[in-house]
Amino acid sequence: MLKTGIHGFPPAEFESRLLRAQKILVENALDAVFVTTPPNIRYFTGFDSQFYESPTRPWFVVVPAEGAPIAVIPEIGAPKMAETWISDIRTWPAPVPQDDGVSLLADTLLAVPRRFGRIGTELGREMTLRMPLIEFERLRADVSGVEIADGSPVLWRIRMVKTPAEIDRIRHICQIASAAYARVPELVSMGDSEREAARKLRIALSSLGADATPFLPAISGPGGVSQIVCGPGDRVLQKGDILFFDTGSVFDGYFCDFDRNYAVGSVSDAAHRAHEAVWRATEAGIAAAVPGATTDDLFQTMAVRLQEAGSIGNNVGRLGHGLGLQLTEPPSHMPGDGTRLVPGMVLTIEPGMEYAPGKMVVHEENIVVTENGPDLLTQRAPRALPTLS
Amino acid sequence: MLKTGIHGFPPAEFESRLLRAQKILVENALDAVFVTTPPNIRYFTGFDSQFYESPTRPWFVVVPAEGAPIAVIPEIGAPKMAETWISDIRTWPAPVPQDDGVSLLADTLLAVPRRFGRIGTELGREMTLRMPLIEFERLRADVSGVEIADGSPVLWRIRMVKTPAEIDRIRHICQIASAAYARVPELVSMGDSEREAARKLRIALSSLGADATPFLPAISGPGGVSQIVCGPGDRVLQKGDILFFDTGSVFDGYFCDFDRNYAVGSVSDAAHRAHEAVWRATEAGIAAAVPGATTDDLFQTMAVRLQEAGSIGNNVGRLGHGLGLQLTEPPSHMPGDGTRLVPGMVLTIEPGMEYAPGKMVVHEENIVVTENGPDLLTQRAPRALPTLS
Repeated sequence: MLKTGIHGFPPAEFESRLLRAQKILVENALDAVFVTTPPNIRYFTGFDSQFYESPTRPWFVVVPAEGAPIAVIPEIGAPKMAETWISDIRTWPAPVPQDDGVSLLADTLLAVPRRFGRIGTELGREMTLRMPLIEFERLRADVSGVEIADGSPVLWRIRMVKTPAEIDRIRHICQIASAAYARVPELVSMGDSEREAARKLRIALSSLGADATPFLPAISGPGGVSQIVCGPGDRVLQKGDILFFDTGSVFDGYFCDFDRNYAVGSVSDAAHRAHEAVWRATEAGIAAAVPGATTDDLFQTMAVRLQEAGSIGNNVGRLGHGLGLQLTEPPSHMPGDGTRLVPGMVLTIEPGMEYAPGKMVVHEENIVVTENGPDLLTQRAPRALPTLS
Repeated sequence: MLKTGIHGFPPAEFESRLLRAQKILVENALDAVFVTTPPNIRYFTGFDSQFYESPTRPWFVVVPAEGAPIAVIPEIGAPKMAETWISDIRTWPAPVPQDDGVSLLADTLLAVPRRFGRIGTELGREMTLRMPLIEFERLRADVSGVEIADGSPVLWRIRMVKTPAEIDRIRHICQIASAAYARVPELVSMGDSEREAARKLRIALSSLGADATPFLPAISGPGGVSQIVCGPGDRVLQKGDILFFDTGSVFDGYFCDFDRNYAVGSVSDAAHRAHEAVWRATEAGIAAAVPGATTDDLFQTMAVRLQEAGSIGNNVGRLGHGLGLQLTEPPSHMPGDGTRLVPGMVLTIEPGMEYAPGKMVVHEENIVVTENGPDLLTQRAPRALPTLS
């Protein structure tokens, strides 16, 4: 039985996140950062809502370099924001198309103690702004004395190193997904469609304690798959197929992101050899994830082994990445990324190769970097390809 | 048994969407519109991927006012985009932090036949741009001879009236969710936590054929709820509670969005009276959804009945909205929205009122406006509040 997970963090967790963030803000000459997207809002406040699925209303949280965070949000969210550790909550009766929080946010930003004259927000890599751009331009004009700068490097620096409580959540969802994957041979069999296979895994994940499963590709192909990001479709599993599952399931806001492969009936020797080669590349990638190594090193460690095993390519563009409040986060294991690993980083180790045209094999595990080296968060995939009957 | 739904549309569906869109582009003096978000990309191409959950790579589709749409996408998506009706597919080996598709998109936009010198994109109301803003600014500089304008009013005009094939999908997911809600009295009982109740409904939705359930609040409170957008939490259902469920589940990319209420054991007479009043306001709202009426009319029709029934407020800010490829879409049933209803619009009818402080009752149904009046897509909520034992 899986241990039941606990939802929610104590105020001390957010206080320590804030203190660390404020130090980084000052180092980067920012008077504040304001955020608009669910993962960044949740990181600083603990506020959780599925309502972001509606694009109608923007939400804002201002994190000043000194003092408490301020929520600037639609009235509809006020009762629940009041239950978080945030005490300064300012609301407007959204939706108000003429001024949906823009002037309220501008007033809030203008009142932030000014030392550097710069406020950051989500303008750069792997971030988007969750508000209409024409309203952001109005905001910029309204705070014309303050420079609105790219806060994404700072936000990623803050979020890239996880706290012990964050790592607990990721480990918990990794264990839930590992248990669900272990059930696949009982649940899925030849003759099921990809869609039916995905439905069975989705229900298993939910039954075992995942809060939600925003990401669950199920893709099959003879001896391998041609791509790993679209599906499930209506294709029916046949003897000789590899069934590829991947999942980003969530517990208390935190993602796992790892895949598993299954042989349908029996598969070719070439497919078995590719599986073995990618399994060993994963083993090498995990071992290489030690403090001081870089993401370039991780890439090279795995890439060399894939090339030796006869890889003819890989359209993914990298061999792993960070994860946490999002399915994928910086860094990227690829040449030129140059991120140096430090304890607390949670990473996927994700080597993949095409061993014949249209036949790709991709493996993936999740680890946390510790002072003592890599700590596996997932139940390691079996070395021998599991078989579905 | 529910009829099995069919996934995917024939090319003729996209050809007719394109023809209509191109007419609207020309009427609005736009040479093209380019889109970056999953629902808009899917609308024009049929391309479906859960991989958008990763924020790392931007995706683009250019819809010119004449000629075929062009996909400008990461290599990882090319094999599957090639299976859609799109034939002009341009890729780059993303992620490439130095130039993640920006120059490729700029070249594509500069080659669009120029008549008006304006190209639209997702800059306005209820839309966001799914790419880093600093990269969008670089794009704007790279195409400096072309004005990048707000294309969101045009995109919403295109998407607001659904095709018969789109309405079929929404009806299908509404019927799946109706069947799942009907099972709640067998599945959920006093002593379950909100989280456990949500898990049971989530599994029922999946079993009955929902592809995914991105939105599933489960919220309880004595005689009503204080808010409707956050939850489930760990609260345990007690006698006298109202359990409020809402779901945006998806079939073939299309959402339902409607809620249901259940009495736990027995509830107060005041709660029953509020339920009856909101049920009747829903009835009036549905009847008022006829071609030629406006969203202001819909609001007034429901608001009058809620006030007569003793409403002391509602923090939602509107009494319904559009839906389709997203959980909520324009228009909004609220004063000043002014949208005139035409056949093919799919709408929620969503009256709600606080009948005592912290005790809110909200109902919701989904309809399509037809020449013959409103056509209910959901199974109408029972007039008498169902009871959980």
